[in-house]
Amino acid sequence: MIAKDFITIQKGLASYIHCTPVITSSLLNKIIGVNLQFKCENFQKTGSFKFRGATYAIQQLTAAQKSRGVVTHSSGNFAQALALAAKGLGVKAHIVMPKNAPQVKKDAVLEYDGFITECEPGNTAREKSAAKIENEIDATFIHPSNNKNVILGHSTATLELLDQTHHLDIIVAPVGGGGLLAGTALAAHYFSKSAVIGAEPMQVDDAYRSLLSGKIEMNVHNNNNNNTIADGLRTHLGSINFPIIQKYVDGIIRVEESEIISAMRLIFQYLKIVIEPSSAVALAAVIKEKERFKSQNVGIILSGGNVNLDTLSFS
Amino acid sequence: MIAKDFITIQKGLASYIHCTPVITSSLLNKIIGVNLQFKCENFQKTGSFKFRGATYAIQQLTAAQKSRGVVTHSSGNFAQALALAAKGLGVKAHIVMPKNAPQVKKDAVLEYDGFITECEPGNTAREKSAAKIENEIDATFIHPSNNKNVILGHSTATLELLDQTHHLDIIVAPVGGGGLLAGTALAAHYFSKSAVIGAEPMQVDDAYRSLLSGKIEMNVHNNNNNNTIADGLRTHLGSINFPIIQKYVDGIIRVEESEIISAMRLIFQYLKIVIEPSSAVALAAVIKEKERFKSQNVGIILSGGNVNLDTLSFS
Repeated sequence: MIAKDFITIQKGLASYIHCTPVITSSLLNKIIGVNLQFKCENFQKTGSFKFRGATYAIQQLTAAQKSRGVVTHSSGNFAQALALAAKGLGVKAHIVMPKNAPQVKKDAVLEYDGFITECEPGNTAREKSAAKIENEIDATFIHPSNNKNVILGHSTATLELLDQTHHLDIIVAPVGGGGLLAGTALAAHYFSKSAVIGAEPMQVDDAYRSLLSGKIEMNVHNNNNNNTIADGLRTHLGSINFPIIQKYVDGIIRVEESEIISAMRLIFQYLKIVIEPSSAVALAAVIKEKERFKSQNVGIILSGGNVNLDTLSFS
Repeated sequence: MIAKDFITIQKGLASYIHCTPVITSSLLNKIIGVNLQFKCENFQKTGSFKFRGATYAIQQLTAAQKSRGVVTHSSGNFAQALALAAKGLGVKAHIVMPKNAPQVKKDAVLEYDGFITECEPGNTAREKSAAKIENEIDATFIHPSNNKNVILGHSTATLELLDQTHHLDIIVAPVGGGGLLAGTALAAHYFSKSAVIGAEPMQVDDAYRSLLSGKIEMNVHNNNNNNTIADGLRTHLGSINFPIIQKYVDGIIRVEESEIISAMRLIFQYLKIVIEPSSAVALAAVIKEKERFKSQNVGIILSGGNVNLDTLSFS
């Protein structure tokens, strides 16, 4: 990759995606003591940055591949993103979702004309179902985070952020599957001198442990320790994004559940925007280590706004 | 007033206020069947449109009046708005607030260097306290809604909205004290052919009843019927804004509490922004009478975003 390639990617995506706004709050800056610039991917189409990578990955397919469709497994933001991205490019999208996925998530995929295949809950079952579709109809499998083109598409959020701001000392992005953090790090490396920090819930600190051990670590699921409110970050790194993260990311800060909730409240209160808990993790990391960020210009990638409103009660 | 006067007001305010964004959601339009354009005053300084009128009202004072300061009574958005507007213009602001006002509201005023005078709860006590300050230090009293310059300042939200959109058939604004609705109606009258509709909670439908009877009606407080979640709309019209509303407003739609909450959820879900319940009343009115608004271009004034986060629980 050279810098010019990213500009080509950005230009190719421009008419499909929203250039999302960057917002600030002087009161919040005063409270925290950091100059924060928030990149609002909650306002991206389908409500998250995932639409960027999904669109770019489909754009890169050959005409023959496009005619056969794409397939992924996701019960979260990538499902909606791939469905709408495919629709916009005239491609069929097959989404493998666990039977027990919330109806609201299934409805969102159907709304964007995605085809849902239900499977049993669990990673093995969903990988098997996706592989079956891949084989049967020769659809192209697009992984939600461990796919080079998905990562490159995601990098455009940071390209825009750098265009929209004057100078950033540090950029902070949440890390789950690693696609966003890898894309952020690549864009920052080629177009800025900004350091890049990942933010991760303590309960699913696989990325933090992976950087320490030098190999991809997992979270042990089905216990009480990985039930983080930041449900978009429960996944683990992959073979494509991990080396990028190892090379270009300057560290990962882990945060507690209560810190995520506090950061989410601050964003609701001062920025007046709706974000999902996974997005709040980045601000929580800055607050946790505020001495390290003190008086610096810090970009925060707010990854999405698809909060489950059933967990938010109005009274 | 002539049209040119509004342009002068708008220019005079431009460097003090935010020109707030207008946002749309194609999914929400599809669900409701109306082309909605939301004017986001939740992103205005101090989190509500009130900052517009407060600033313009202080700008219109003489130098001698400015040197003696301003006074108002409010436990809501006008308190913060007047405090920050006064600070920006180098004027002292005295805010009369009931003893039992939430600490968070007092803190917001103090954050903007406003001077708080506490009084007993109730209208009589707060009017008396404000009059006392007015007399003792000769500060200028600025009413939160029944003040010509406050109304004119508020009109700029609609001037902007009209600049930011192509053509609006109807503009809908919530009505409480009547300042916003009167300002909206004046701007629409001078600069568009848009109809203007007020939106009001059924529990405090004083404006609706006032238009019917031809005189300012009150809400009977301290019973169970006016405990609307849209707490910014519990006030009544005044002698200055009522004639404007009578002349230029095309009707008022009343909505139930459950309709307000549903509209608030839709805005959180589809627009990804935080609004206060009073703001949701306008969308609730459109949904309630959606046949009337069908396929029309409708502007909605989202009045503010200062929701009490203690009533929103994250779990």
